[in-house]
Amino acid sequence: MKNDEKKIKVSIVGATGYSGKELIRILLKHPYVEIMHLVSASYVGKKIAEIFPDFLNQLDRELIELDTDKISRDSDLVFTALPHTVSMKIVPDLLNKKGLKIIDISADFRLKNPDNYAEWYQTDLNKESQFLLKDAVYGLPEIYAEKIKKASLIANPGCYPTSAILGVVPLLFNQLVSPEGIIVDAKSGTSGAGRKLSLGLHFTECNESFKAYKCLKHNHIPEIEQELSFAYNSKKQQDRKEEIKISFTPHLLPINRGILSTCYLNLVNSCSTTEVLKVYEDFYKDAPFIRIFKPPTLPEIRFVEKTNYCDIGFAIDDRTGIIKVISVIDNLTKGASGQAIQNMNIMFGFPEKSGLIQ
Amino acid sequence: MKNDEKKIKVSIVGATGYSGKELIRILLKHPYVEIMHLVSASYVGKKIAEIFPDFLNQLDRELIELDTDKISRDSDLVFTALPHTVSMKIVPDLLNKKGLKIIDISADFRLKNPDNYAEWYQTDLNKESQFLLKDAVYGLPEIYAEKIKKASLIANPGCYPTSAILGVVPLLFNQLVSPEGIIVDAKSGTSGAGRKLSLGLHFTECNESFKAYKCLKHNHIPEIEQELSFAYNSKKQQDRKEEIKISFTPHLLPINRGILSTCYLNLVNSCSTTEVLKVYEDFYKDAPFIRIFKPPTLPEIRFVEKTNYCDIGFAIDDRTGIIKVISVIDNLTKGASGQAIQNMNIMFGFPEKSGLIQ
Amino acid sequence: MKNDEKKIKVSIVGATGYSGKELIRILLKHPYVEIMHLVSASYVGKKIAEIFPDFLNQLDRELIELDTDKISRDSDLVFTALPHTVSMKIVPDLLNKKGLKIIDISADFRLKNPDNYAEWYQTDLNKESQFLLKDAVYGLPEIYAEKIKKASLIANPGCYPTSAILGVVPLLFNQLVSPEGIIVDAKSGTSGAGRKLSLGLHFTECNESFKAYKCLKHNHIPEIEQELSFAYNSKKQQDRKEEIKISFTPHLLPINRGILSTCYLNLVNSCSTTEVLKVYEDFYKDAPFIRIFKPPTLPEIRFVEKTNYCDIGFAIDDRTGIIKVISVIDNLTKGASGQAIQNMNIMFGFPEKSGLIQ
Amino acid sequence: MKNDEKKIKVSIVGATGYSGKELIRILLKHPYVEIMHLVSASYVGKKIAEIFPDFLNQLDRELIELDTDKISRDSDLVFTALPHTVSMKIVPDLLNKKGLKIIDISADFRLKNPDNYAEWYQTDLNKESQFLLKDAVYGLPEIYAEKIKKASLIANPGCYPTSAILGVVPLLFNQLVSPEGIIVDAKSGTSGAGRKLSLGLHFTECNESFKAYKCLKHNHIPEIEQELSFAYNSKKQQDRKEEIKISFTPHLLPINRGILSTCYLNLVNSCSTTEVLKVYEDFYKDAPFIRIFKPPTLPEIRFVEKTNYCDIGFAIDDRTGIIKVISVIDNLTKGASGQAIQNMNIMFGFPEKSGLIQ
Repeated sequence: MKNDEKKIKVSIVGATGYSGKELIRILLKHPYVEIMHLVSASYVGKKIAEIFPDFLNQLDRELIELDTDKISRDSDLVFTALPHTVSMKIVPDLLNKKGLKIIDISADFRLKNPDNYAEWYQTDLNKESQFLLKDAVYGLPEIYAEKIKKASLIANPGCYPTSAILGVVPLLFNQLVSPEGIIVDAKSGTSGAGRKLSLGLHFTECNESFKAYKCLKHNHIPEIEQELSFAYNSKKQQDRKEEIKISFTPHLLPINRGILSTCYLNLVNSCSTTEVLKVYEDFYKDAPFIRIFKPPTLPEIRFVEKTNYCDIGFAIDDRTGIIKVISVIDNLTKGASGQAIQNMNIMFGFPEKSGLIQ
Repeated sequence: MKNDEKKIKVSIVGATGYSGKELIRILLKHPYVEIMHLVSASYVGKKIAEIFPDFLNQLDRELIELDTDKISRDSDLVFTALPHTVSMKIVPDLLNKKGLKIIDISADFRLKNPDNYAEWYQTDLNKESQFLLKDAVYGLPEIYAEKIKKASLIANPGCYPTSAILGVVPLLFNQLVSPEGIIVDAKSGTSGAGRKLSLGLHFTECNESFKAYKCLKHNHIPEIEQELSFAYNSKKQQDRKEEIKISFTPHLLPINRGILSTCYLNLVNSCSTTEVLKVYEDFYKDAPFIRIFKPPTLPEIRFVEKTNYCDIGFAIDDRTGIIKVISVIDNLTKGASGQAIQNMNIMFGFPEKSGLIQ
Repeated sequence: MKNDEKKIKVSIVGATGYSGKELIRILLKHPYVEIMHLVSASYVGKKIAEIFPDFLNQLDRELIELDTDKISRDSDLVFTALPHTVSMKIVPDLLNKKGLKIIDISADFRLKNPDNYAEWYQTDLNKESQFLLKDAVYGLPEIYAEKIKKASLIANPGCYPTSAILGVVPLLFNQLVSPEGIIVDAKSGTSGAGRKLSLGLHFTECNESFKAYKCLKHNHIPEIEQELSFAYNSKKQQDRKEEIKISFTPHLLPINRGILSTCYLNLVNSCSTTEVLKVYEDFYKDAPFIRIFKPPTLPEIRFVEKTNYCDIGFAIDDRTGIIKVISVIDNLTKGASGQAIQNMNIMFGFPEKSGLIQ
Repeated sequence: MKNDEKKIKVSIVGATGYSGKELIRILLKHPYVEIMHLVSASYVGKKIAEIFPDFLNQLDRELIELDTDKISRDSDLVFTALPHTVSMKIVPDLLNKKGLKIIDISADFRLKNPDNYAEWYQTDLNKESQFLLKDAVYGLPEIYAEKIKKASLIANPGCYPTSAILGVVPLLFNQLVSPEGIIVDAKSGTSGAGRKLSLGLHFTECNESFKAYKCLKHNHIPEIEQELSFAYNSKKQQDRKEEIKISFTPHLLPINRGILSTCYLNLVNSCSTTEVLKVYEDFYKDAPFIRIFKPPTLPEIRFVEKTNYCDIGFAIDDRTGIIKVISVIDNLTKGASGQAIQNMNIMFGFPEKSGLIQ
């Protein structure tokens, strides 16, 4: 590219959380993007490199207050990297601005059934946001690329859901496994919990330890169930739609970044490793960020650190009729900001891997 | 205790592995034990504190070669902390010595069905050891205390099995859960893999990462299945015995010590938290090292570090009919050497917690 | 010991910080101590095992508010494990109670020159506490055992000072090194910073990293300088007393526990390793918790984890005339609560190692 | 760049060590480089992604045996990433090939005085390599950029030396500090020790610990002393050249990547922070990878992770007349392979930051 004419202008609302930081980290290397405004309620007036000295000499930008007029005037795209229930207060307003596209990294536009917000997030979605749900596109490019191309509002998937959905959808879509008895045992690094102060995230409290948490009511459950149900029902001839229910247990790993999900599914019929391998390779044949591991090799978190890959491996347990799927991502990259930029690339017609080749 | 007359003399064969080191660490504080011989094939002639400077000024003992006559002459009890298939070459000979008791920390005497050794350990058990299987007592004191009191040979349980069995046996024994579809998703610190050189255990190779391994054929599977089947069948009226099969996936945690097993079982009938809590508390009412966590509190690895506790928590998922059990131990203590010393205390009539109160 | 008659009663003010927790951990194993009251401003009414589930089934005690009458009535000894400048508000009152002994783990009674508090702690010591300074004994048993025996108020040393002072005092006391140009480059695990919320102590912010901090004005500097000056001047014939000034740089290690101090001193005359070794062994010949490493072996933090040892090694660099001393402790044990209990043992005539063996 | 015509062809000898892996990681993103041959004695015939699954779908290359004819025919540049004393057997032969340039990551061509090899590396440099010493350019671009442009053989600096030299050279060059009494207390992550099996590098042996090692005779000492002496003498009027001697202590950090060096130097005259800041900024005004931190802010290892930056901070201790310099790099990037690629960029006229903008 010879000049900057082709570059789009992007702003970030919520620039000083871990997702915001990861957006900046990647966008600094992106050939077709210029970073415009960085919004942060907590650090107005500070330079971004004062908060994250990683960006010293790389990005000289002052953090500003939210000003939707200013932001929309100066931006082609806004990433909203905000806590859940905060996004819904801002996104409708931003989306009213002519021509502005939004990629929202919160959960506020992911669930098609608005009732789920009250149940799983303890807050009703406001009316304006409910209204946007039908147009919001769930930003999982390996499944919804065609819709993403035309979307104005992307609901960027959660970290656990990205890992779990990408891992098991090919099996459900092809009806190789039962929709019943699906178990997702997931393990995440601590950056998944965000940058907010919390005793449980203190070094001494989680280092050299490991625990399960939110064992019954983690708010990523309805998101995973929604997408697994879509996938399972999409190919079915029968009238009756299955509502898939999963057992999901998140755990906290004493590492900075990465999620590994171990998924257990019941095979409908006995299957060979070769058959399953082909199912995965076919399903993801056009997906540049999916890497299928040939058994018995299995993915590990370190292989995807700071990359946008989702690595998937599996093992068929003939003794029990269970297939185990291991799905690995970096929670901040493919599980949040990298995937958001992958969505941006698709929305703006850039090569899908732009800025994401590590 | 006024003097040393009541102290028993113990020796350790395999003193320079992690289990051997942990035996020494605990025995140094034990009021009724005198450490006699330390055997180590690799370090003959060295002082133990040269290998483990932790023991400087605490234990001045030279590592010696294996000499079964000498050891048995000077010992009331021998701990054999050897790799699997090595123990079976030594234990029969030691056990022939009059009055000597043995606690074997390897797997060589744990499986009642000798055929399982060929299948799961790729080595036939030798004839002498096969002969010993019927007298060897599986050293899980919370279940087999009465047999342990009279045993000469203890097969000390494996680390993963200790965690999994203690976690789910009360449910199976009381027929609260189905014997089908049991899943054990287990996570262990690196000391579980021993002290032998291996690239996969290098700091840079496992730090900041996480992986599943031996996804289909881990050799702890038959041990867990044996004990779960015993427990499930022991109370059943029916003639037909169930052979429980589990799906077991071990993972490697980037921490030194500790195992957390997340177990998924299908409830036969819907159950309240209070009912299940009572089942656990009744089952373990005389077990000083079992701590039952009241939901929604869950155990974490750090709570049991360097202790002999097994901490157990659970959650009933009404949406799916699944009960999740979280069982946590220190793999070197309750998962190996601490449990061995608990067995020793029972065999010699010492208070069960002697030397193990942290 | 046949019965509990010989047991002393101890209470802890500030029971829910890391020093308080470590006191409890050790006292639970102590043969001559009964734990009475646990005071915690933040958790009044909670059980200690709710805050630290490590103590489940071990200590059933409710946290109470500070009540000096009640505490003094029921205790022979009180540990005050409070933040600096909080202790001075409580200790004078407690010390007025007849017969009560106090071991204070804060810095408030460590500095003999009261002016140092304003300069290094940004707070003047109150009058009552200033008055106590002359009677407070600096609780480093390897140097002040005789005074500790008779003390009512112990100023328990800081973690960095314990490590630095024990490491270099034998060289200064014997005038082997110059009082000029002493450098202490110290590295501590994160528990040294306490349990208070702080972004810099979040797992993601300190894991996989390392930094220096408080590079010029760390408040442990005057404490170290005071004791090094005492040691250096104590044997000198000359009238003029040296006021030793050190360059001290603390660093934050991504580990839970432990301090390693690398100290650089200029040898006055060339010295052999054997000579220096003898100096250390003589100086610490009656000190059960000091272990001198014979060069070229050097101590490591892991050797002292959860122990009360201070491990010391050294290397003489003939090229530069510098002697490097490596001194290692567990900051919570020998650097705080273990040392406090060692002081208690000496004050009450118990064997010095009681409760502190492992 | 429109096409591949401008791309240079590079090969790597020693592709499966950590430096080799880091070279590949960076070169995959480099706009002007095509990776040709990957040589690895240990893994001939394997695919690189079998050894490092990180490179799955990114680089499909088979590891080959060393064949200097083939390599030189197909390459413009060869990186030799080999253990010390192995490089010297290969480099002279490769350098004989017409037009081939070499960047050697070992120590074999760094020391101008060949006698130092016998003393510090326990091996004599062979004759051919001794002959090359005068033409080899020490590849520290911040000092030797002009020479690097014209060099055929680059001796890529060591990790500790890069950190220490860049940190203190501006002070020595400008005669602000004494050449006497310089202390470098350095701390490195475990990847610095390479990928070779070693018990001391096992996770359980270095996790949650910290130690000093090679306290007196680390082989990076003569390299640091050579460059500090050059810098100090270069501006001096006097005839007599100073031979600077430093006290250097390396330590092992329980992290994967990164070095932090704490350097202590004696100021000749009292100096203000502003003056020193200006000295650093002037010295490095054209250096894109040096970031000077304004006191009291100090660099931390995490800020440079996987980047080619060297972050430098300092503090002037008026009490002692000492200036403390904190210098931080990623040992595998600026401390090895990133710096090698920075050298390549300069040698081939590419923008200095090509491929290195994170």
